[in-house]
Amino acid sequence: MRINRNYTISKSAIIGDNVQIGANSIIHDNVEIGNNTIVCENCIIGEPNARSYKEDNYINPKTYIGSNSLIRSGSIIYSGSSFGECFTTGNMVSIREGSVFGKNCIVGTFSDVQGDVVFGDYCRLNSHVQIASKCVFGSFVFIYPMVVFTNDPLPPSNILIGCSVGDFSQIAAGSIILPGISIGKHCLIGASSLVNKNVLDYEFHTGNPAVRIGKVNHIWSKENKRPHYPWPYNFDRGLPWAEVGFDEWTKTEEGKPYAL
Amino acid sequence: MRINRNYTISKSAIIGDNVQIGANSIIHDNVEIGNNTIVCENCIIGEPNARSYKEDNYINPKTYIGSNSLIRSGSIIYSGSSFGECFTTGNMVSIREGSVFGKNCIVGTFSDVQGDVVFGDYCRLNSHVQIASKCVFGSFVFIYPMVVFTNDPLPPSNILIGCSVGDFSQIAAGSIILPGISIGKHCLIGASSLVNKNVLDYEFHTGNPAVRIGKVNHIWSKENKRPHYPWPYNFDRGLPWAEVGFDEWTKTEEGKPYAL
Amino acid sequence: MRINRNYTISKSAIIGDNVQIGANSIIHDNVEIGNNTIVCENCIIGEPNARSYKEDNYINPKTYIGSNSLIRSGSIIYSGSSFGECFTTGNMVSIREGSVFGKNCIVGTFSDVQGDVVFGDYCRLNSHVQIASKCVFGSFVFIYPMVVFTNDPLPPSNILIGCSVGDFSQIAAGSIILPGISIGKHCLIGASSLVNKNVLDYEFHTGNPAVRIGKVNHIWSKENKRPHYPWPYNFDRGLPWAEVGFDEWTKTEEGKPYAL
Repeated sequence: MRINRNYTISKSAIIGDNVQIGANSIIHDNVEIGNNTIVCENCIIGEPNARSYKEDNYINPKTYIGSNSLIRSGSIIYSGSSFGECFTTGNMVSIREGSVFGKNCIVGTFSDVQGDVVFGDYCRLNSHVQIASKCVFGSFVFIYPMVVFTNDPLPPSNILIGCSVGDFSQIAAGSIILPGISIGKHCLIGASSLVNKNVLDYEFHTGNPAVRIGKVNHIWSKENKRPHYPWPYNFDRGLPWAEVGFDEWTKTEEGKPYAL
Repeated sequence: MRINRNYTISKSAIIGDNVQIGANSIIHDNVEIGNNTIVCENCIIGEPNARSYKEDNYINPKTYIGSNSLIRSGSIIYSGSSFGECFTTGNMVSIREGSVFGKNCIVGTFSDVQGDVVFGDYCRLNSHVQIASKCVFGSFVFIYPMVVFTNDPLPPSNILIGCSVGDFSQIAAGSIILPGISIGKHCLIGASSLVNKNVLDYEFHTGNPAVRIGKVNHIWSKENKRPHYPWPYNFDRGLPWAEVGFDEWTKTEEGKPYAL
Repeated sequence: MRINRNYTISKSAIIGDNVQIGANSIIHDNVEIGNNTIVCENCIIGEPNARSYKEDNYINPKTYIGSNSLIRSGSIIYSGSSFGECFTTGNMVSIREGSVFGKNCIVGTFSDVQGDVVFGDYCRLNSHVQIASKCVFGSFVFIYPMVVFTNDPLPPSNILIGCSVGDFSQIAAGSIILPGISIGKHCLIGASSLVNKNVLDYEFHTGNPAVRIGKVNHIWSKENKRPHYPWPYNFDRGLPWAEVGFDEWTKTEEGKPYAL
C-alpha cells in the first residue's frame, strides 16, 4: 500500500518499534526515533552540519524524535535537535540544529525554525512561520501563518537578542515580533501587527505598530456567550484538558503549573 | 535528455497518454493524470493521509490532475483533490486534501493550500501564498506573494469561517484577509493590507487596517490612457479573451457569465 | 560518513575538483560546478525549462555555480543562472532562470528568486524572501525574513518594473517594496514597512506606508557608543574588511568603489 523504497538509514541510528520510513527519506548518523513514529517521504532527519563534508572526524550530534511523531514529506530536520513525543510537522519544514521542543508540538508547512530555540509543550506553529534563533516559548503557544520572530535589533549586528513568549499566548497571522520583545502569558497579538513593545500577561495588542487595546477577557465569544479568553475554557481540541475541562486539569499534577 | 529514474507509480494509478514523470517522483494509489501532463522531479502526487500508515484497510481517495498540466519539482499534492486541465504549479507547492481547482489555475512556489478550498477557473496564486481551509474563490482571481487567507475568528476556536472572493479580484502582495471576510468581484486589495471589513464589487481597499479608497475604475493606466480596471480590458496574457477581446468573449458561451 | 547514493550527474555537466553531491540530487545538462563546492541532498541544479519536456531539440542553458559554494538540501536552481564563488543557500530555496549573483552571496531557506534578477557581491537574503523578476541589487545588501520585492505596478499588467537597491542597504523583516521603487545605498527600511516612495542614500524609512524618519546615522548603537550606521564600521562577520577595518579596506583595489 505505502511505497517504501530508496530510503537510507544510518547504521548508528536507533529506530524504535513500529517506525515507518517513507520513500527517498534519509536518516543520518546518531538519530534516535521513538516507537510508532512515521517519517513520510523525501525527508532528511539529522541533517549534518556543512562541516561534515569537510572534516573527516566530524561526529554528527545526536538528534532525538519522540515516539508517536509524524514527520510529513519533504521535511528537513538538522542534527542536534530534540522533539518530545507526538511531534507533528507539515510538509517541507526546516528545523536547524540545537532546537528543543517539548511534547505534542506541531510545526506547519514551510515553517523555518532557525535553531537554538526552545519550545515548551503543545505549541503549534502554523504554515510559513519563521523563528529566529535564541527565541524562547512557553507551552500552549500558537503561532499563525506568516509570523516572524526576529533577533537582530540593529541589522546587521553581533548581539542577537531572542524574543520570549509566555504560556497560552496566541500570535495571529502576519505579525512581526521585533528583537528582544517579551510577550507574557495568555496574550493575544492581532493579525498583521508589528510588535515593538513588551506585552504584559493577559493583554491584547494589535496594529502596525502594535498598541495595547486592553485585557484579553474583554473579547467576547458569540458562540459561547462569554469571554473567549483565557481561551483554554473554550478550546480543547488535542489538548490535555479535553476530557475534564481546564479547571479540573489544573488540579492534576500536569496541569497545576498552568492554573490561572 | 531528461533524467527519468527512481520514479514510482502505483499500480492503481491511471496515467494518460504522453504523460512524463520526473526522477524521484511518486504517484500514489488512485491518482488519475490526464494526457500530456508533466510531473517534474521529486514530486509526490496523491500523498495519502497519515492514517494510511496506521490503517491496514486505508483506501487512498481519488486524486485527479487534468490534461496538459505542469507540476513543477518538489511539489506535494495530497489525495482527494482535483485540478482541471492546464493546471500549473511552481516548485515545492503543498496542496492538502479536498481542494478543488477549475481549469487553467496556477499555484506558485512555496504556496500552501490547506485543503477543503474551492477555486474557479484561471486563478493564479503567486509565491508564498497561504490559503486556509474553507475559503472559496471565483474565477480569474489573482493572489500575489505572501498573502494569507485566514479562517479562525477567535484563535483558537472550533468555528472556522472561510473567506470568499468574487471573479476577477486582485489581492496584492503581503495582505492578510481576516476570517469570514467577503471580497466581491473586480475588487483590488492594495499591498500589505489587513482586510477586516467586507469589500463590495468594484471597490479598491488598502491599508492596515484596510479602508475603502473608491471604485477601481478611478485607477488610471498611463500605458493605456484609460482606467486600468476592470482589468480584463487591459490584460489578456494566457486568458481566454486573448484573441477576441473581453467584450467579444463575453458574448461567447464560455464568457457570458463574466459580462460586466 | 555522508550518504551519497542515487544521485545523477548529466554527462554534459562539468564538475570541479573535490565537489561533493548528496543523495538523491540531480545535476542537469550544461551545469558547471566549481572546485570544492558541496551540493547537499535532494537538490536539483540546472532544472530545465518546462519546454524541455516538449521539445526534442531543447538545449539546456548553461548554469554556473562558483567554487567553494554550499547548496543546502532540497534546493532547486534553474538552468541559465550564474553564481559567483562562495555562494551559500539555506534549505529548499527556489531560484529561477536568468538570475545572476556575484560572489559570497547567501539565499536563505524558502526564499524564492523569480529569475532575471541581478545581485552584486556579499548579498544576504534571509528566509522566506521573495524577489520578483527584473529587480537589481548592489553589493552588501541584506534582506531579512518575509520581505517581498514586487514588479507589477497595476496588477495584472504587462509592463513589469523591477525595484533597485544600492550597496549596503538593509531591508528589515516583513517589508513589501512596491514596483519600480528605488532604494539608495546605506539605507535602512524598518520592519513591516510598505515602501511606496523612493528612498535616498543614507535614509531610514519605516511604517505602513513608509515615511522618512531621518538619516541612518542618527540611529545609535549602545553596544558601540556611536552611530550604528553606516553599519560596515560596526559589523564585519564574513565580510572582506573583517581583518583590516572598513576604512582601510576601502583603500584596497576591491574596497575602493565602496568608500563613503
